[in-house]
Amino acid sequence: MISSARFSNSLDSNTLERDREIDLYAHRSHFPALEANNRTYFNYGGQGVMCGAALEAISKNFRHIEELGCFSNAAGSWMISEYDATKATIAQEFQVSPNTITLTENTTVGCNIALWSVEWQQGDRLLLSDCEHPGIIASAVQIQKRFGIEIDYFPLTKTRNASAEGKDSEEVVELLVQHLQPKTRMVMVSHICWNTGQVLPLKAIATACHDRDVLVAVDAAQSVGVLPLNLADIGADFYAFTTHKWWCATLGLGALYIRPEIFDAIEPVFVGWRGLTSKTPIPQWRQDGAKFEVASSTYALYEAMRIAIANANSWGTQLQRYERICQLSKILWERLNALPHIDCIRQIPPESGLISFKVNQDLAKKSSKNAIAQMSNSLIAKHLETEHQVFIRALADPDCLRASVHYLTSISDIDCLISILETMD
Amino acid sequence: MISSARFSNSLDSNTLERDREIDLYAHRSHFPALEANNRTYFNYGGQGVMCGAALEAISKNFRHIEELGCFSNAAGSWMISEYDATKATIAQEFQVSPNTITLTENTTVGCNIALWSVEWQQGDRLLLSDCEHPGIIASAVQIQKRFGIEIDYFPLTKTRNASAEGKDSEEVVELLVQHLQPKTRMVMVSHICWNTGQVLPLKAIATACHDRDVLVAVDAAQSVGVLPLNLADIGADFYAFTTHKWWCATLGLGALYIRPEIFDAIEPVFVGWRGLTSKTPIPQWRQDGAKFEVASSTYALYEAMRIAIANANSWGTQLQRYERICQLSKILWERLNALPHIDCIRQIPPESGLISFKVNQDLAKKSSKNAIAQMSNSLIAKHLETEHQVFIRALADPDCLRASVHYLTSISDIDCLISILETMD
Repeated sequence: MISSARFSNSLDSNTLERDREIDLYAHRSHFPALEANNRTYFNYGGQGVMCGAALEAISKNFRHIEELGCFSNAAGSWMISEYDATKATIAQEFQVSPNTITLTENTTVGCNIALWSVEWQQGDRLLLSDCEHPGIIASAVQIQKRFGIEIDYFPLTKTRNASAEGKDSEEVVELLVQHLQPKTRMVMVSHICWNTGQVLPLKAIATACHDRDVLVAVDAAQSVGVLPLNLADIGADFYAFTTHKWWCATLGLGALYIRPEIFDAIEPVFVGWRGLTSKTPIPQWRQDGAKFEVASSTYALYEAMRIAIANANSWGTQLQRYERICQLSKILWERLNALPHIDCIRQIPPESGLISFKVNQDLAKKSSKNAIAQMSNSLIAKHLETEHQVFIRALADPDCLRASVHYLTSISDIDCLISILETMD
Repeated sequence: MISSARFSNSLDSNTLERDREIDLYAHRSHFPALEANNRTYFNYGGQGVMCGAALEAISKNFRHIEELGCFSNAAGSWMISEYDATKATIAQEFQVSPNTITLTENTTVGCNIALWSVEWQQGDRLLLSDCEHPGIIASAVQIQKRFGIEIDYFPLTKTRNASAEGKDSEEVVELLVQHLQPKTRMVMVSHICWNTGQVLPLKAIATACHDRDVLVAVDAAQSVGVLPLNLADIGADFYAFTTHKWWCATLGLGALYIRPEIFDAIEPVFVGWRGLTSKTPIPQWRQDGAKFEVASSTYALYEAMRIAIANANSWGTQLQRYERICQLSKILWERLNALPHIDCIRQIPPESGLISFKVNQDLAKKSSKNAIAQMSNSLIAKHLETEHQVFIRALADPDCLRASVHYLTSISDIDCLISILETMD
């Protein structure tokens, strides 16, 4: 639907603005959420925006199922072809086989499948970073209660200003490895930290863990649709994500990559007809990701996901989109840093689309910005939405605001956010 | 959308046809799947048909989320209100509190939540009937592998011709109770058997099990939308179902009722932010069904479910719809029995909407019906769909055909199926 793009690797802010913003506005016109009410959207890390063609596909496919006769051979064949095409599309984005893909409802279900797949024994240990999402911690605690395992946390927060590249990345791996113990069986980390945007050196982590027979499970909620990904090369054992954030597909559709080398050694927990062959005795598992699926789901959503991915790819490759995200994120980070009363959480230029920052209350007061100095972050986010149609998110830990920069983000979006933060008093 | 109906309790086939079929056709005109291609639909036990208003609500709500700003305070509030309204509607149908309802993706997820909620210890026992769905058996086997429990099966098939009422029902309960052992901690049964349509005397089963400190989990895939239900009165501990079958709502939306008396004693397995309060230490569970939910799901589908239920209720009460289902099922069962070459699986008039039957090959050959005598059941089902736009399902165990009779079924639908079975040679 949109012609493919060519990038230079060394675009500065002006070049970005001059050469690409016109293309971008044509591309953005396909997204109703971005067109509405002169809106400035920085919440891709919470939920992406859907293009019109994806929305139309959902309406069409719900009706198509009725036309085909709902529970019928015709509709059944159509659902299977949608299912296969969807797994193939996801797999292609990651340069892996479709057999490695399990469809889920969301990222957290994928993380739960990973966490519970190990035959945990009392005294086994699970290592998490101290930046993981509360939902993941809750799942770990449930496993601890059920099987008597120990949960360890390594202080990733300490390395908040480490790059994912070079010497810095080695420090992160070393810190993690220091916290592995003889009975550690699994490490669960985010590829990109949801609260700071820090990118973890995942390939090096996977190598270090595999050397010690430790499985690596990844919360990829914030990395899929941001980083260029070759999952076979990275080598993580589980990579769980959703399609409704950076991929701009639909709520209620996620997936999990499982490394083929571990497929036979791990067990599904919640199971159903989707994972079974028709052979007896039950269960005879399908030899693909369906082994970890359960039962019926919303097949009418699948095409929307493929359209969303095709749409993004029509604008630029994974690498091109990632480069644009980094360029724009750097611009936003620099301009936030230039505001006297704003502190960015990380001290190095962003390597992802998440930029966390907070109001420095003392400096805000000194600049006579008494109102913003006294507002909680969630109140600031609410004010920006209600008064300015600017959408950013408040986080609890660290207590801050988070802006998500997508390849769909424009320089004008950044101008708008900065100008409001500059003038709010 | 459709005016409410008045029923007589003693309608015979002629009265049904005379008084209600005109109303029915007006009501059915709201369902695109029933209007298409002169279609005869008998697969409600596989998937219901959606009314146009429900389909429109889905399209509208996907767009509405984009209009509200996707990840925004406005969209968040809307999603919460949809979520609350949906649980309230489900709860009202069952005469229970919304706090008892967990939203799931399908029946099997709900069954898995129930099966895994017990803190199973080695040597504990789980009792299933011999008519449960392969997905449920697979889940039980996974629990057996993980915790070293024993699975027992009671021969419900033996009581295939037992009514859910009176003396017959006592026999079923006695049979089940005979298979309880001192270490049996849970019984898992269907309320209506998916393969035969047999209705189980669930209230009596729950009472007998609770007297022995045994939990009762129910696969309610075939009963919700068929039987009038008061779940508090029935007393089952878990009641898992989907909305896309007899309720005629959407694929990908199911729910689980959990009896409040056991809420604190059971543990969730797959967990996420949906079940958590924001308090620390993690996890502090919400004190309602969300404790067993995970993370984001397809909120845009929820209104369609409420519309589907309102639509059904506008046509008649749960009792009135159940009475119509039984009346029509009885007519179909009698007319199938009257065909020389067809055997119904059950020997007593149906108490649900599922009628299983098969071709008696010897008698078919004697009547020179050589083609149908040689066809597998799945081939017969395919032939009916392709050649006659008649939708019924083939089952493997027992090897038979299954017709689902809904309150939306018409006498003409039955005429059509019977006439084709009569004339196929």
